[in-house]
Amino acid sequence: MFAGENRPVITSKDNEKLKLIRSLAQRKHRDREGLFVAEGEDLLDAAAAAGVEAELVLVAGEDVEPELLDSVSTLGSGTRALGVFRERWAAPGGQLSVYLHGVGDPGNVGTIIRAAHAFADGPVVLSPDCADPFSPKAVRASMGSIFARPPARAELSDVGGHRLALVPDAPTELAGAALEPPLVLCLGAEREGLPADALEAVDGSARIPISESGPGSLNVAMAATVALYEARNRMAGHA
Amino acid sequence: MFAGENRPVITSKDNEKLKLIRSLAQRKHRDREGLFVAEGEDLLDAAAAAGVEAELVLVAGEDVEPELLDSVSTLGSGTRALGVFRERWAAPGGQLSVYLHGVGDPGNVGTIIRAAHAFADGPVVLSPDCADPFSPKAVRASMGSIFARPPARAELSDVGGHRLALVPDAPTELAGAALEPPLVLCLGAEREGLPADALEAVDGSARIPISESGPGSLNVAMAATVALYEARNRMAGHA
Repeated sequence: MFAGENRPVITSKDNEKLKLIRSLAQRKHRDREGLFVAEGEDLLDAAAAAGVEAELVLVAGEDVEPELLDSVSTLGSGTRALGVFRERWAAPGGQLSVYLHGVGDPGNVGTIIRAAHAFADGPVVLSPDCADPFSPKAVRASMGSIFARPPARAELSDVGGHRLALVPDAPTELAGAALEPPLVLCLGAEREGLPADALEAVDGSARIPISESGPGSLNVAMAATVALYEARNRMAGHA
Repeated sequence: MFAGENRPVITSKDNEKLKLIRSLAQRKHRDREGLFVAEGEDLLDAAAAAGVEAELVLVAGEDVEPELLDSVSTLGSGTRALGVFRERWAAPGGQLSVYLHGVGDPGNVGTIIRAAHAFADGPVVLSPDCADPFSPKAVRASMGSIFARPPARAELSDVGGHRLALVPDAPTELAGAALEPPLVLCLGAEREGLPADALEAVDGSARIPISESGPGSLNVAMAATVALYEARNRMAGHA
């Protein structure tokens, strides 16, 4: 959308590009524009590595005065580069994927996208009430995996495969559970867990054993990471 | 230190307790006072569950005007309660523990303290250049496990037991590595990993296998969580 332009240095906070970037801090604008912001060279490198082109890139000192770039950053000062990207969504699928129900913390959503990139071939499927995976916090927590592994959006009933719920009080330990591909690991919100209608839609459940003297539950990102590791390992033949 | 006082409602930002709380946002003051702040009812509940008493508790509307409590909060507005606690440190030990070298991100340090609480009986041992586990971010990320499982501080050479380094390019996969108690899982900083002198001080190394199409490495908190899960599970008899 901004391709082919010259690159005059932006010196006004009223510049249209800066206005766009500022607006994309809010979900309603991201949803409307279908665009999101990735801050920092590491994330821009991750986009390039995934073959994803930015709609717009601003580099401090080249395209924009550094203080102005800082002023639109959600990371605070010292941002050296920032890109605007088109939101991309995948379809559910793969031999191993994750379904998240009502996970409201964007850091957890981003971390689980990273974990799925590491251990699974399928996407992270988000229920409609999950945190926006394209929010600044989620994008940062994904460490760029949002580019290589776009998330999917669906209700659990629309996700095919063997659906295994991770539930703290399930009688079967994960290490003893049947893990048959295509496997969908299903996890609920931090406090509430999976609601009754989601639990009715799964094919089985398992728990991650924790110490008796340990905390009552695992953070959803930790639980998803552990389950993805175990499933990948087992499905790769390490019983 | 503030026990036995009446509880007049604090109405001035120059109040000594508020000054103390503000100062504890900085590491140098935490180090000097040996105190730290835990914000929010969940963390205060976690302290109580671990049998840890606060030096000072402020509840919005009871002890302090809500806007004044918000003004000393690092979480932003809406803080309902906040406690000041004495920093407690443990000694290295246990059948399963973690050693972190130069992990600078307080969120990762806190998350790993939580994971060790869930899966291990020993503490998280921090090299001197790790992030402060009593920083607001670390305390929050520990979800209160900082109270039940105080961290330890030591050089790797001072930590006894079988020291297993988690290294991305180790030839042995974690699932095939010998895991003999007392086991110390050793992990390095996000980018740098374990330095040469730490690698010389370990007894073995293993990697967590990730997909070929995955990211180049795991976040240190994810790696520690997975390794703790695997070690706990194997040591509990699930081969």
